[in-house]
Amino acid sequence: MSFENFESATDASQTIEPLLERMTVREKAAQLAGTYVGELDEQRTPEEARKLVSEYGLGFATPFGYGAAAYTDPVESARFANELQRIAIEETRLGIPIAIPVDAVHGHAYMAGATVFPHNLGMAATRDQQLVERVGTVTAREVAATGAAITYGPTCDVARDPRWGRTFETFGASPRLCGELAAAKADGVHDADADIGMVAKHFPAYGEPEQGEDTAPVDRSMSSIYRDFLPPFEAAIDAGVEGIMPCYNSINSVPSHGSEFFLRTVLREELGFEGYVASDWNGIGMLHENHGTAESMEAAVGQSLVAGVDVHSLGEEKHVEYLEALVEAGTVDEALLDDAVHRVLSLKADLGLFEDPYVDVSETRTVVGADDHQQVSLEAARSSITLVQNDGALPFDPDIGEVLVTGPNGDRLDHQVGGWSCKTAEDLSGITVREGVESVVAADTKVTFEPGAGISEPGDVDAAVDAAADADAAIVVVGENWYLHEFGPEEVAGPSESFPNRTQLGLPAPQRDLVEAVAATDTPTAVVVISGRPTPLPRIAETVPAIAYAYYPGAQGGLAVAETLFGLVNPSGALPISVPRSTGHLPTRHNHLSHPYPIGREEHGETYDPLWPFGHGLSYTEFEYRDLSATPERLTADETVSVEVTLANRGTRTGAKPVDIFASRPYSSVVTPVRELVGFDRVHVDPGEERTVRVQISADRFAVVGPDGDARVEPGTVELSCGEHSTSVQIQD
Amino acid sequence: MSFENFESATDASQTIEPLLERMTVREKAAQLAGTYVGELDEQRTPEEARKLVSEYGLGFATPFGYGAAAYTDPVESARFANELQRIAIEETRLGIPIAIPVDAVHGHAYMAGATVFPHNLGMAATRDQQLVERVGTVTAREVAATGAAITYGPTCDVARDPRWGRTFETFGASPRLCGELAAAKADGVHDADADIGMVAKHFPAYGEPEQGEDTAPVDRSMSSIYRDFLPPFEAAIDAGVEGIMPCYNSINSVPSHGSEFFLRTVLREELGFEGYVASDWNGIGMLHENHGTAESMEAAVGQSLVAGVDVHSLGEEKHVEYLEALVEAGTVDEALLDDAVHRVLSLKADLGLFEDPYVDVSETRTVVGADDHQQVSLEAARSSITLVQNDGALPFDPDIGEVLVTGPNGDRLDHQVGGWSCKTAEDLSGITVREGVESVVAADTKVTFEPGAGISEPGDVDAAVDAAADADAAIVVVGENWYLHEFGPEEVAGPSESFPNRTQLGLPAPQRDLVEAVAATDTPTAVVVISGRPTPLPRIAETVPAIAYAYYPGAQGGLAVAETLFGLVNPSGALPISVPRSTGHLPTRHNHLSHPYPIGREEHGETYDPLWPFGHGLSYTEFEYRDLSATPERLTADETVSVEVTLANRGTRTGAKPVDIFASRPYSSVVTPVRELVGFDRVHVDPGEERTVRVQISADRFAVVGPDGDARVEPGTVELSCGEHSTSVQIQD
Repeated sequence: MSFENFESATDASQTIEPLLERMTVREKAAQLAGTYVGELDEQRTPEEARKLVSEYGLGFATPFGYGAAAYTDPVESARFANELQRIAIEETRLGIPIAIPVDAVHGHAYMAGATVFPHNLGMAATRDQQLVERVGTVTAREVAATGAAITYGPTCDVARDPRWGRTFETFGASPRLCGELAAAKADGVHDADADIGMVAKHFPAYGEPEQGEDTAPVDRSMSSIYRDFLPPFEAAIDAGVEGIMPCYNSINSVPSHGSEFFLRTVLREELGFEGYVASDWNGIGMLHENHGTAESMEAAVGQSLVAGVDVHSLGEEKHVEYLEALVEAGTVDEALLDDAVHRVLSLKADLGLFEDPYVDVSETRTVVGADDHQQVSLEAARSSITLVQNDGALPFDPDIGEVLVTGPNGDRLDHQVGGWSCKTAEDLSGITVREGVESVVAADTKVTFEPGAGISEPGDVDAAVDAAADADAAIVVVGENWYLHEFGPEEVAGPSESFPNRTQLGLPAPQRDLVEAVAATDTPTAVVVISGRPTPLPRIAETVPAIAYAYYPGAQGGLAVAETLFGLVNPSGALPISVPRSTGHLPTRHNHLSHPYPIGREEHGETYDPLWPFGHGLSYTEFEYRDLSATPERLTADETVSVEVTLANRGTRTGAKPVDIFASRPYSSVVTPVRELVGFDRVHVDPGEERTVRVQISADRFAVVGPDGDARVEPGTVELSCGEHSTSVQIQD
Repeated sequence: MSFENFESATDASQTIEPLLERMTVREKAAQLAGTYVGELDEQRTPEEARKLVSEYGLGFATPFGYGAAAYTDPVESARFANELQRIAIEETRLGIPIAIPVDAVHGHAYMAGATVFPHNLGMAATRDQQLVERVGTVTAREVAATGAAITYGPTCDVARDPRWGRTFETFGASPRLCGELAAAKADGVHDADADIGMVAKHFPAYGEPEQGEDTAPVDRSMSSIYRDFLPPFEAAIDAGVEGIMPCYNSINSVPSHGSEFFLRTVLREELGFEGYVASDWNGIGMLHENHGTAESMEAAVGQSLVAGVDVHSLGEEKHVEYLEALVEAGTVDEALLDDAVHRVLSLKADLGLFEDPYVDVSETRTVVGADDHQQVSLEAARSSITLVQNDGALPFDPDIGEVLVTGPNGDRLDHQVGGWSCKTAEDLSGITVREGVESVVAADTKVTFEPGAGISEPGDVDAAVDAAADADAAIVVVGENWYLHEFGPEEVAGPSESFPNRTQLGLPAPQRDLVEAVAATDTPTAVVVISGRPTPLPRIAETVPAIAYAYYPGAQGGLAVAETLFGLVNPSGALPISVPRSTGHLPTRHNHLSHPYPIGREEHGETYDPLWPFGHGLSYTEFEYRDLSATPERLTADETVSVEVTLANRGTRTGAKPVDIFASRPYSSVVTPVRELVGFDRVHVDPGEERTVRVQISADRFAVVGPDGDARVEPGTVELSCGEHSTSVQIQD
């Protein structure tokens, strides 16, 4: 049978109740389990996946679009999606379509030839919500073109320890910035002419694991959780994300996958979320295997369902069997199962899977990696690159005699795209920095390339120095390689002790030595950092005049870097996270809380002492802020303040600039951050012109958060600042 | 008038109610305020203090025994104490005696010639409760001999970020170790033939400030606060401490000095504390000046009293005036004031101040720094020194031709005693390492000394290397200098950027270079670390065969170090805190929570990867554990398990060894630490002998702590371990 009689989502949703009534416990349990094809803890062949879908009627399968999938070709992936769909619809008793989730973290980047965007950390440097929306739309189109229905994202994690290996996946260190951009991503996905569901992750607090260690415990007050971690989830839920994924770690001694408090009280009652909750891969198994809150895998399955996890993403037949046994033994109430299944069927209905489950494979190749998609990626990379230091060496003249490109990231597309992307050369297409430089310099400019160093291994520094001495400009592209999670997998990222790792944030000696040796030649030198984290460069900052962070700039990033260095693009990124001076300075946070200085403030090191602060970013033109104002000057807790500031371009080049608006409270009932980003925009101003930016900020962004997470917009003064300017408003009862 | 009719504390306490009834609001408020003599934010002369006591009848005064006092001579201090007491008794309307608190953190160490003990971190390395008690008793005797009545201590803070400048004041990283030793200190003080009150500090959670920055916010879950921070306070309260001092910092966005939750609900209702709460110096003013929870100083005074702070330690006349105004305006209920004053008067009665307020100055000189007191200090230093590495180079032969002592801490008594002590040479008496070596080697052994390096400044390394080359053994004494709080004050500890500071934990280059240069001479070399924190020495550990941590070993520490290096004392300390590999490895905690490893455990850096672990410490003899057992094997939540283990001395020297017993839970309702110290002892075993150690552990130490701080001894398996051995017990319903 099939559901061809469903002509709309509404029809489908009306059919869910009767469908649910027809389902056995086992069929219900199967809707809550998924499988995969590829190599995770175990190998799953396509044949095994087919069999699991056919025999059990699993609700989800992930045969492609993640790190260890069997398929990277978009057309093959789409065909296999259709095949699984056909099995689900035609070979199971009820014919419920399957849903295919993918990890389209920065574009559908596990597909060969797909559009690979800058990672979120770079996207956040743009402060450009419209651009992030367009990224979401392109991603949704490419995901849909392969027959997938769900993408795991947007990332709502706030990066609060840059040692963490998933820092690059975040929109940075500000809850507000992360929230607005997660919502923009979701809006963009929903704007696409495709029904793609999103799973905001990783709820509720993932981005500050102890020691920066991935999935290590997060231990924070309720004050911090509500103030620092939840806002992006609130924003994503308001934007209508279909799903929520809990984080792997425990929060305050309770694993998120087993936390009824977070998954029911906070998520559903307080945040009003009505969608489904999908486990992170083995998040349920870890309750037993690692957290020790479940004495068996069966107990873990029960614990997670009771806590509020609907779907066991990789649960397979074991999940079905455990859940069936738990319900039949009366350990788990069937009503809980029904609620979860109802959410999954509603999801599938909302995604149009009942009426239109198949993808048109003939369109796949045209859509995935389309030229206009690649242009969005290029534009994103251009807007993200953040110039942090420049004594005038930049921009270089494109009509120069000879240019050296050196460094371990100067000609490595895999390093440039970063994790959550294809990792082998044959599956990647794009432009490296070396290639970008070749394409932007004059026809008779000679471009030489010498790697000079590996990521952590020494290279031929002498060759690089010789080439630098001969050149008129040197570009040293340093940073990190391809990795995900805890700097793995080993065969790509190297062993856990080697750089990058969680204990060392700064560059390893071979890269530092290369930079210093090249800079010592007196050839004008620029350092470009391609890395997933805010790499501290304290010594390099003292010796190299021009430094830019490119984050992981995506497949077109090499061109954007070259255009920026040679002045074809005026840099306009602003740091979305502070660059610390060293690991000993962590946490280095712009929004730390006020506190005393008992030994005397003047002989006490600064609390916030970054190498470069949140929001920092230079331009080739000269911008000046003036006339910061806030209207009305007095408002109540449910009103909105309009903050205006004028940005004048006093220089000679056209340019864009992110505008950050911060708020602080001199006095309130509890201790508050010294500043918090409450609004932002990005404006483009021609030379000699000025533009007035208006940012609407609702008063609830000035709420203070008490020790139990209770937020309240208290009466009193709120100071607002932009650049060196500040003003204030009064909140009234 | 005076209270000579009070012949016992009981009489006095019965007189408190009538006395309270006679007091004006202003007189009550004055009992809750203190003053000082010396230089804090402002200079206070003896004359000013006399006047404040006389005019206002302040309840407390601290004219000596803290870092910036006017007096360091014990006899002068005692005389001034008597003078203030006379003024309070004879020149105020009610004649209530004053109480004088001091910072006798490691002995009454701000008195010239006093007995200066190793700091608590070293005391914790001994695992010797009886020894800590004796330290408490000696301290109380010397404090009483100067006319003081209260000592601010014991320190109940748990050191959870070793960057923190007050790490050395703590009993280390284990809540249980901190608790048992804080209780032992209190017992010792109470054992003395003197009525000295104690103020356990700093409640409830001070030892994990963000960035290791002193007084920066502590943001931890209730689970962590109850599990990791509160146990030492529970132990100190059980031991009968008279006072509690809140910490300066905010906890979860509420300043401790303004936290009704912590100071009333937790402290009084849950922990049952009935004593008084004294502010840390300017802790009340900081509510207004730094935390921003009070819009004025007057509001801060009201906020703190309502929250539960009884005494404003440095409040002076302003506190009296604010409090009087607040009560008269009805903003603060006079009943709250009465409760606080009642506690202060009860304290004074309990301390015998009403019947015997004066000190016999003729005894002062005899008691302070008495020979038998110094012997306790020497014994403590001997027991604390922790040998972490030894390839057999140690012990050196005392009958050796020539010995070099080098390093910035080889001949600096001020560095050796560390902060919270007199800081100038004329006020200090004791034995440096150089002097200790001279006293233990043979008469014809030549001892040379070359500093070789400053704490952070380069020195004459060549001279040290030349001397090392000529010597038969070299001792390099490295580490930190005298500091308190945030590595100040600047005129003693150097500017905030210089080492020691909070961002750099490892030794600065001049000290590292000195060690490496000396070790490279091939003269047998031992490194001794005199510092307040667990200084990482990753490179030195690879090149130097013998390394010992001496913490701040007190005034006799130089002799203890020398005796240890030359084999007159067999080292027996055990690390009370992990030594991390670098700041990038922080937090490095033996008792971290279990958690997942998503990328594959084998390619994931170890969560706990210290340079040397908690509990590590070598001996010159060879110890072996055997026969670990626990009885009964099944117990209920209110029972006690007896853990026995036999320690055999297989070597040829007599020796002592700390014995640590750890517990863990494979499964429980919440995530638990991978191990937690639940009991410890210290045993002395002669060569060829063995001793069976029995540690009684009540089952409540196996409680698991939920997200709200709710502790419960759950049924299930508890694994117990000692050394490489383990056993288990079952907790039953």
